[in-house]
Amino acid sequence: MIVITIPGVCREDIENKLQELKIGEVAAIVTEENGRTLLSIPQPAGEEAVLALEALPWVDTVVKTESSYHLVARSGRTATTRVDIGPVTVGGQGLVVIAGPCAVENYEQLKETALRVKQSGAAILRGGAFKPRTSPYSFQGLEEEGLRILQAVGTEVQMPVVSEVLDPRHVEMITQRVDLLQIGARSMYNTALLKEVGRQKKPVLLKRSAQATYDEWLQAAEYIAMEGNAQIILCERGIRTFEPYTRNTLDLAAVPAIKHLSHLPIVVDPSHGTGRWRMVSPMALAAVATGADGIMVEVHPHPESALSDGGQSLQLNRFDELMKQIKRLMPALGRNLEQVGERD
Amino acid sequence: MIVITIPGVCREDIENKLQELKIGEVAAIVTEENGRTLLSIPQPAGEEAVLALEALPWVDTVVKTESSYHLVARSGRTATTRVDIGPVTVGGQGLVVIAGPCAVENYEQLKETALRVKQSGAAILRGGAFKPRTSPYSFQGLEEEGLRILQAVGTEVQMPVVSEVLDPRHVEMITQRVDLLQIGARSMYNTALLKEVGRQKKPVLLKRSAQATYDEWLQAAEYIAMEGNAQIILCERGIRTFEPYTRNTLDLAAVPAIKHLSHLPIVVDPSHGTGRWRMVSPMALAAVATGADGIMVEVHPHPESALSDGGQSLQLNRFDELMKQIKRLMPALGRNLEQVGERD
Amino acid sequence: MIVITIPGVCREDIENKLQELKIGEVAAIVTEENGRTLLSIPQPAGEEAVLALEALPWVDTVVKTESSYHLVARSGRTATTRVDIGPVTVGGQGLVVIAGPCAVENYEQLKETALRVKQSGAAILRGGAFKPRTSPYSFQGLEEEGLRILQAVGTEVQMPVVSEVLDPRHVEMITQRVDLLQIGARSMYNTALLKEVGRQKKPVLLKRSAQATYDEWLQAAEYIAMEGNAQIILCERGIRTFEPYTRNTLDLAAVPAIKHLSHLPIVVDPSHGTGRWRMVSPMALAAVATGADGIMVEVHPHPESALSDGGQSLQLNRFDELMKQIKRLMPALGRNLEQVGERD
Amino acid sequence: MIVITIPGVCREDIENKLQELKIGEVAAIVTEENGRTLLSIPQPAGEEAVLALEALPWVDTVVKTESSYHLVARSGRTATTRVDIGPVTVGGQGLVVIAGPCAVENYEQLKETALRVKQSGAAILRGGAFKPRTSPYSFQGLEEEGLRILQAVGTEVQMPVVSEVLDPRHVEMITQRVDLLQIGARSMYNTALLKEVGRQKKPVLLKRSAQATYDEWLQAAEYIAMEGNAQIILCERGIRTFEPYTRNTLDLAAVPAIKHLSHLPIVVDPSHGTGRWRMVSPMALAAVATGADGIMVEVHPHPESALSDGGQSLQLNRFDELMKQIKRLMPALGRNLEQVGERD
Repeated sequence: MIVITIPGVCREDIENKLQELKIGEVAAIVTEENGRTLLSIPQPAGEEAVLALEALPWVDTVVKTESSYHLVARSGRTATTRVDIGPVTVGGQGLVVIAGPCAVENYEQLKETALRVKQSGAAILRGGAFKPRTSPYSFQGLEEEGLRILQAVGTEVQMPVVSEVLDPRHVEMITQRVDLLQIGARSMYNTALLKEVGRQKKPVLLKRSAQATYDEWLQAAEYIAMEGNAQIILCERGIRTFEPYTRNTLDLAAVPAIKHLSHLPIVVDPSHGTGRWRMVSPMALAAVATGADGIMVEVHPHPESALSDGGQSLQLNRFDELMKQIKRLMPALGRNLEQVGERD
Repeated sequence: MIVITIPGVCREDIENKLQELKIGEVAAIVTEENGRTLLSIPQPAGEEAVLALEALPWVDTVVKTESSYHLVARSGRTATTRVDIGPVTVGGQGLVVIAGPCAVENYEQLKETALRVKQSGAAILRGGAFKPRTSPYSFQGLEEEGLRILQAVGTEVQMPVVSEVLDPRHVEMITQRVDLLQIGARSMYNTALLKEVGRQKKPVLLKRSAQATYDEWLQAAEYIAMEGNAQIILCERGIRTFEPYTRNTLDLAAVPAIKHLSHLPIVVDPSHGTGRWRMVSPMALAAVATGADGIMVEVHPHPESALSDGGQSLQLNRFDELMKQIKRLMPALGRNLEQVGERD
Repeated sequence: MIVITIPGVCREDIENKLQELKIGEVAAIVTEENGRTLLSIPQPAGEEAVLALEALPWVDTVVKTESSYHLVARSGRTATTRVDIGPVTVGGQGLVVIAGPCAVENYEQLKETALRVKQSGAAILRGGAFKPRTSPYSFQGLEEEGLRILQAVGTEVQMPVVSEVLDPRHVEMITQRVDLLQIGARSMYNTALLKEVGRQKKPVLLKRSAQATYDEWLQAAEYIAMEGNAQIILCERGIRTFEPYTRNTLDLAAVPAIKHLSHLPIVVDPSHGTGRWRMVSPMALAAVATGADGIMVEVHPHPESALSDGGQSLQLNRFDELMKQIKRLMPALGRNLEQVGERD
Repeated sequence: MIVITIPGVCREDIENKLQELKIGEVAAIVTEENGRTLLSIPQPAGEEAVLALEALPWVDTVVKTESSYHLVARSGRTATTRVDIGPVTVGGQGLVVIAGPCAVENYEQLKETALRVKQSGAAILRGGAFKPRTSPYSFQGLEEEGLRILQAVGTEVQMPVVSEVLDPRHVEMITQRVDLLQIGARSMYNTALLKEVGRQKKPVLLKRSAQATYDEWLQAAEYIAMEGNAQIILCERGIRTFEPYTRNTLDLAAVPAIKHLSHLPIVVDPSHGTGRWRMVSPMALAAVATGADGIMVEVHPHPESALSDGGQSLQLNRFDELMKQIKRLMPALGRNLEQVGERD
């Protein structure tokens, strides 16, 4: 941590004041020409020390030089962490495609979708049972019934399944029924929920909040890792900006940024990231080209009658077409498609 | 709801397709000159209907003409809802000042602060016990011990108290100990929590998420109201923008906007809204001038050693100076200061 | 400037490389415990040095400790710069109200507006002649004819006048006809224009771009000051955010921030800042309470038929009501209203 | 245009008022169940009519149903407009790579860069001569001398050249020296400049402002097209968001969005779009995968000593490596690389 004072503060004063605040030792003091003093203080005691220092009248700026996360930081590790979801590995050479409807509506809808997306090359089946909806008048999901359908279909078609958990009181129950626990974008700051999934022995897919910086997102991952669960996959799904045409602005730069900052794998959700089905395929291809470990795509047999997010869901045929394009890209990118069928 | 088609779609087709989708009756069809058709459809079945329509290839745009909230909408009511927190009324003629430390640290700190802020004119005492922190390495609050201190001090100094609830499993316990339940900005989309506080018989202070539109904020309030709890106070505390100098951008236009859109009272938090104590007083005065029903200010006897958010806390003397300025403004604005002492 | 290296770089290497780059002398080198080296380098040669250093593989972070502007920086000056526009002073004890229509439409419209706003207490008359419009199909202003009307009406009613300049080729001509040159928000980064107005002997009102940080805004002012023109008034008029309800988000925190960072006076434009006439008066009062040196308000005798920005213009009666409220606030704030009539 | 009234306004009143305002004919009036009236009004007279209507007390909402641009709108055209820059075509089957230093520094630097980027596969040479800098203390470019060097090198290596124009007074001079006129992001709202380049017979590369919506960007293109110059290439280069890690947030969704909304070709600048050289290659590949007509990349032989934007420039070797990756992608995407060498 570096502290820059306002001009004209003398050294003795500073040392006395820091002792009163019990803020570490000063490693070094350097006076800049313009009369300001720079302090280098190692091992700060957390965010509080920074804020306390900023409140001091003789302090101009505090610069954090330490990372705000440690367990999930890249810190020189060359390999991406491999997260195993049943027979599927996220973070290895293979690109993982997660597909399925936004919400589980009934057995037939999910079964039809699952068979088709698996045939096209998807490795993991998604299906929402507890839905986080902005409006209390919107469909909130089939809840436990939806989870039972998801689990049954996953078993029948032999695909691992992922579903979202919204409430810390549901974590144990949902953990029994899915292979991958999803923390949605609106729950990224829900530390009670993060800690609860951190205590489970199930991999977690952590979506970025639409307002989160990379730094905050990785700190949310740190909350999970600190409780003992290191099987974390990050998911970029768009941030909120001024552009009204798209539902969110998909920030694909998150892929190289996260690869640089963290050892966790990262997947991209172009469906929520754009909100418009016409844009899903080009943005999915872009995500693959940028080096993402996987993509997560909403697919629905009849998007126009979907009970949730129909406007951003791909029809089964369009999803199949996208998968063909992705397969063509794989060798040019030196990668392959991770598929569940390969292991049968 | 108005649906605008792409050019060249014939009426029979539209009517047939809407029947298939089971989307209401078409109230009226108007052909615009440029060949596009406009449909007016009353009483949509929720967000889904909009999204399903947008997914149709012959639909260009869907315009929602209905409000997405009802219980909290202004809808012609002339009076602001009055929310009673013990002897204090928010939403009436009196301006309500909520003050206290970001986090309860110990009995002495809180008692000293409470006595002084009450003397200066504050009506409600704030103090965080469960703290939502971005970093898992930051001080997370004294939790239940903090609540006990808050309740004790509130009783001793005769001020109603407010504290934040983060976890739906804590709602009942916290409801026993405070006079006003706070939902923090990071929990605004936490529908499990919103529903839980909606079932209590305690007033709720609902902070705006840093990424929330007015519309989404009012929908979060609707979640609470739908469960039966209509005693809701909204709190503007800044939104996330590109400006790095301030912690958030305090959106004071929220005050006249909410007054126009909703009958709920609104208070402003200039401490989180700026993140810098030097800016708290001018922004607090601005909030009062814009017509807010109250303000919520962080005050700490020794901000430089505060365990949380010291950089944005006012010293006791500075808070007293702010209150004097506010009192001078009251008659010019045709208002008075709501004070607990008045009723003793 | 502080440079923080990645871990494990040795001192000799650093000194050799900095010599090659011809980047100043290293004032001090401090090794932090985690193996990284901190360099303090005084007097950087500008933005380039920062960028060049950031490009080096052994550099982790570069922290600018020097201000990016000098002439307009507060730097310990206690008084705000006073800018005289004819008999009116901006930056003194008196609050200056600038009012008038968005665009000059004809002599009658402007004369009626000018007489009425002066009577209500406005000190400077505004009126656009060259209009920066997003759409090429929108009314672009009366141009030179508009300026002639503005100058004539200003003389007749004895009010200084302000109008916007969009094109460096027009600067001299417009300087002849107005008392205050306005640089609009969309021109804030137009350095050719900034330099041209910097060479004039007329005060300049510099609006903040809707995307500009405080730092960039003050650097734009520095462009003007560097050419010799130090008579600069800053104008906050809202920034672009995700909120769709308002045209812009009026950032009133800019007032205390600018007061802290710069000695230049600052005024606030609540008309463009909100885009809705219902919000203009509350936000104008808030701007006054926050300590702004003035406000700039769009007023139109018949907003519903205005050729430009009618939706955000106040009717003459509503403006008069606002001015009465402002006058009531003045003594409570220890200020007075700057008026042209006082000097007649 | 659709106008939605507040509840309880009667039809006769509406018709009378619209006649007074001289706002077209009402095509149709439809009463919705909730007592509000919907008016469909064809052929509005521009932005003013919308604003004037919004100012009326009996109007709740005005919905624009017409496009705000016409010449550059897709409007059913299936082909992308092909823009020829000397022997290079943007908008056809071939991917066009524009490369070169941010600023022309001297003949040797540019010649070395030009020879190498051409060899790697770039088709157009970029080099800034007039630089738009935030700080008046930053290097402002070699100006005319820079243009002479650029023109000379372009001729010698047989590559068309592109450079930015900042000032309407320079347009004719720069038009003589370059093959493609660049309008930078900070000039996108500079309508005086847009009109001036619209009068030239040279293709224009129009960068998106960091604050511009797609709609505003296309209206800026419309300004150019209205003056007679339809040879326009759009360039996405990142928007301003809250994320501090990257200089801008590169909005790759602009590619499919613009392809849907307009017939103009679009290229992507991942250098300004990220501000970090480590992220340029992954984002360049993503841009190609999303269907962009080209990319624009900053390349410098010695980025660490570059006078401008060194931190985001690729070294020659890294650029060559990127071009090899792009060439591998081309067949998988059904495309080829547009090269100047092919036509020699």
